[in-house]
Amino acid sequence: MVVRVDLNISLDGIGATADQTPENIFGEDWGRLVAPYVATRTFRERVLHEDTGEGTTGVDDRYARAYFEGVTAEIMGAGMFGLHTFPDKPDWRGWWGDEPPFAYPVLVLTHTPRPPIEFPNGTRFDFRSVSPQEALEEARTLAGDGDIRVGGGVSVARDFLRAGLVDELHVGITPIVLGVGSRLWDGLHGLEDGYEVTSEVAESGVIHVTFRR
Amino acid sequence: MVVRVDLNISLDGIGATADQTPENIFGEDWGRLVAPYVATRTFRERVLHEDTGEGTTGVDDRYARAYFEGVTAEIMGAGMFGLHTFPDKPDWRGWWGDEPPFAYPVLVLTHTPRPPIEFPNGTRFDFRSVSPQEALEEARTLAGDGDIRVGGGVSVARDFLRAGLVDELHVGITPIVLGVGSRLWDGLHGLEDGYEVTSEVAESGVIHVTFRR
Repeated sequence: MVVRVDLNISLDGIGATADQTPENIFGEDWGRLVAPYVATRTFRERVLHEDTGEGTTGVDDRYARAYFEGVTAEIMGAGMFGLHTFPDKPDWRGWWGDEPPFAYPVLVLTHTPRPPIEFPNGTRFDFRSVSPQEALEEARTLAGDGDIRVGGGVSVARDFLRAGLVDELHVGITPIVLGVGSRLWDGLHGLEDGYEVTSEVAESGVIHVTFRR
Repeated sequence: MVVRVDLNISLDGIGATADQTPENIFGEDWGRLVAPYVATRTFRERVLHEDTGEGTTGVDDRYARAYFEGVTAEIMGAGMFGLHTFPDKPDWRGWWGDEPPFAYPVLVLTHTPRPPIEFPNGTRFDFRSVSPQEALEEARTLAGDGDIRVGGGVSVARDFLRAGLVDELHVGITPIVLGVGSRLWDGLHGLEDGYEVTSEVAESGVIHVTFRR
């Protein structure tokens, strides 16, 4: 069982963009950051539920497939679930429609209690106001023999990395400079200690960097 | 004739480290940042003037060779020349001993006038208190048909990049997180516009990213 983080970041390390508006809730920068991931066949099949056989099938897609493989429980922040974007929607059920691409239990870290949400495909969101360590302890009991993903956003991933709780970090670095947003590497001086770091470049230009214990 | 920048940076974009002390004038972080470059055969031959045939000969060395190829004039900051480390040494002649690895004219940007310094191998340091544009104009007359390198440090490189004066930027990204120091990408939002960006990974783990107009 390993604890994994997978994120898309820019060359300047930004993994949470800052140009969202009420009219464009994701923002332009987010679209540019995740474009190569969104273009993969795996994203189209697993997240958009398209069955057209379209999408890239190269290195980016290999990482996109690995993103979903073997994970049986997840921890994510309130921001990733959407609670910061829609603070006034008590019936918000996440960004992913009726078939979220998880199909396993997800712990959402938030200080505001909410009742759990269940989907027919096995996705279940539970809301917890706990520390990273406590969330991980519960996720371990939920995950069984599978892996746990700390899904994000960046600040949640950084909390888990800083606490030394992550066994494997994969970042897809999109070769753009965003300038503004939340930087993954802040406060992670010497993160490479205790990890083996490997990298490869995808056809799209994305640089995939993996830290593995 | 192209204007080039070549820098070593960390995963978090730091190209000027901040842990220097009077006892360790380069600092530990600088050593870790440039270790793969210093290990190349080209660095040993061109900078250390070793003739032992040692040093790496892979991808890092290919970039190290390219660093020196075709450049016939250079612009660097006072910090890179060493004036910030040794402000009280009026006879400071740079870090590079009696045979600096330039063998061409170098303009050092500083607000403190100094007489020029010449070396038998053709290196000549001239000290200028001018804008990036003015320095580039003089460098063009000095360079003839060759290329101009903006040698660094990071803040000087950033000034030239921000002013749109750089045709080719190569960064060797050492896969370490330094946390403190001067970050290359600050203030360079959208730098990729107008450049083609390509990347490759060296045997050492260094990620070489090139922006080319």
